[in-house]
Amino acid sequence: MENNFPSREDINNAHQQISPFIHCTPVLKSSAINEMLGLEVFFKCENFQKIGAFKIRGATNAVLKLSEEEKKYGIATHSSGNHAQAIAYSAKVNHIPAYIVMPKTAPKVKVNAVKGYGAKVVMCEPNLQAREEGLKKVVEDTGARFIHPYNDYEIISGQATAAKELIEQTDVLHIIMAPVGGGGLLAGTALSAHYFSPQTKVIAGEPKGADDAYQSFKAGSLIPSDKPNTIADGLLTSVGEKNFPIIQKFVEDIITVSDEEIVAAMRIIWERMKIIIEPSSAVPFASLIKIKENFQGQKAGIILSGGNVDLGKLPF
Amino acid sequence: MENNFPSREDINNAHQQISPFIHCTPVLKSSAINEMLGLEVFFKCENFQKIGAFKIRGATNAVLKLSEEEKKYGIATHSSGNHAQAIAYSAKVNHIPAYIVMPKTAPKVKVNAVKGYGAKVVMCEPNLQAREEGLKKVVEDTGARFIHPYNDYEIISGQATAAKELIEQTDVLHIIMAPVGGGGLLAGTALSAHYFSPQTKVIAGEPKGADDAYQSFKAGSLIPSDKPNTIADGLLTSVGEKNFPIIQKFVEDIITVSDEEIVAAMRIIWERMKIIIEPSSAVPFASLIKIKENFQGQKAGIILSGGNVDLGKLPF
Repeated sequence: MENNFPSREDINNAHQQISPFIHCTPVLKSSAINEMLGLEVFFKCENFQKIGAFKIRGATNAVLKLSEEEKKYGIATHSSGNHAQAIAYSAKVNHIPAYIVMPKTAPKVKVNAVKGYGAKVVMCEPNLQAREEGLKKVVEDTGARFIHPYNDYEIISGQATAAKELIEQTDVLHIIMAPVGGGGLLAGTALSAHYFSPQTKVIAGEPKGADDAYQSFKAGSLIPSDKPNTIADGLLTSVGEKNFPIIQKFVEDIITVSDEEIVAAMRIIWERMKIIIEPSSAVPFASLIKIKENFQGQKAGIILSGGNVDLGKLPF
Repeated sequence: MENNFPSREDINNAHQQISPFIHCTPVLKSSAINEMLGLEVFFKCENFQKIGAFKIRGATNAVLKLSEEEKKYGIATHSSGNHAQAIAYSAKVNHIPAYIVMPKTAPKVKVNAVKGYGAKVVMCEPNLQAREEGLKKVVEDTGARFIHPYNDYEIISGQATAAKELIEQTDVLHIIMAPVGGGGLLAGTALSAHYFSPQTKVIAGEPKGADDAYQSFKAGSLIPSDKPNTIADGLLTSVGEKNFPIIQKFVEDIITVSDEEIVAAMRIIWERMKIIIEPSSAVPFASLIKIKENFQGQKAGIILSGGNVDLGKLPF
């Protein structure tokens, strides 16, 4: 490849390295859902993953790629979501320090989860500028390495292993669908399909209220989100610079769905499959419901990205 | 055996007969829960079973045991819960008629589910007398065979297959825990442990607000519930006459838990395992939390009986 995208070997290597630290999550099917859609759907259950989300794959890969010198100083990030837990957990497992800058407004349960993994939490004002400044100071003070949640090839190679496993666990799929926020999971999914199942098309699902990937994909250049607003709180970020060219090259299409469609899709999965997924996870399934006529009788894989919901604030 | 309890052969036979019609449900573990309790817990996930609950096991066995003559006239029951769906679904799969007497107050979603399986629904007033009279009339009018939800050896043999599978799917367990309402699942579990893993003790969990099994077990004779009231709505019924002697003989102990303990246990399973269980399913786990000190370092199996909850009425 003429670019420096992660190679087949990078993803194979990431998978081999991180496997002792992650679950090979199950692939579930539902005959009720298959009947409802008229196609066969294979759900890759990253909601059952360590920390309840795929993010531990990329974080673990990034940590394992550090030099012994870098490990001494540890890792840092700013996040109030699954990436914070992923960084904290993978640091714990690998016995290195972790520093997480979190907005004051982050739910206490998430702050406690991160602290529970032994990470040092630095509180800041709830805006991007304060988060970035807080992180800069932490990095200067500690020498920790900043691990970006998605705009990073090690992260992309790690997230790619979810689709790689899905491909290994199923017969040939006609399509694989993944959600898109910053683009770590989507870029990884697209690369894995390209290398390990080239006949499989990758289609992304994105919330209408945070549709920068869709807009950028159609325009052919990066257009960041302006005031994104969606119930799929894992997908509020805009696509990264390293992620976008991979998405442009290897993703077939991006489908957008409303919050109502996301909640309806989430409800079907909760009720029919009896598994807990977070709103962001329901986005590709909501998208598949929208385009199901194009894939009647075919096989579709869906990456259920995570299951971390606040049970006190459910949308039902 | 000197009694006419279902034999080892009855349960083996039931399992062989019903296997093509049911799921062999997975057994899941959670390292977070194991750490929390100090023992190793194996969850048998009947929430992933057809119709979302173990009840399809007994209902299918009862249907398959009917003569060709009986099949012509079909089956009937009164229920507003999982047994109604189990009877309707197993009748559909076996192409026989089904008649379900349901109280007017039953949630529309459950009535529609039963009708969706092609069963004829007969509405009645919401009290036991009206339900029994409604059922009597249906049986007289149609010649259908009444299938009792638990006070029936074919039902008990069918429900026994859940524990039989759990035993086959795990190493030797020190205890197996099941909830008790009418006693179909508990009696079946106790028989399967007795026949297939005699070193395993069976312990029941029961809601304090419907503790007739506990009272009966301690008194040595059947004492039906008086105005039972618990969030575990699948366990409101009193233990059956055929179930009680089996429970007396083969169950080690019955632990009672408050609704608060049930909801707390349910929340742990939802949050840590990302699976949906109904309140009745959380009763044995709540009971295990209570007696965990007695089983430190040991292996416990728990039958998660079902996952049919109304998402609009969650206790969180």
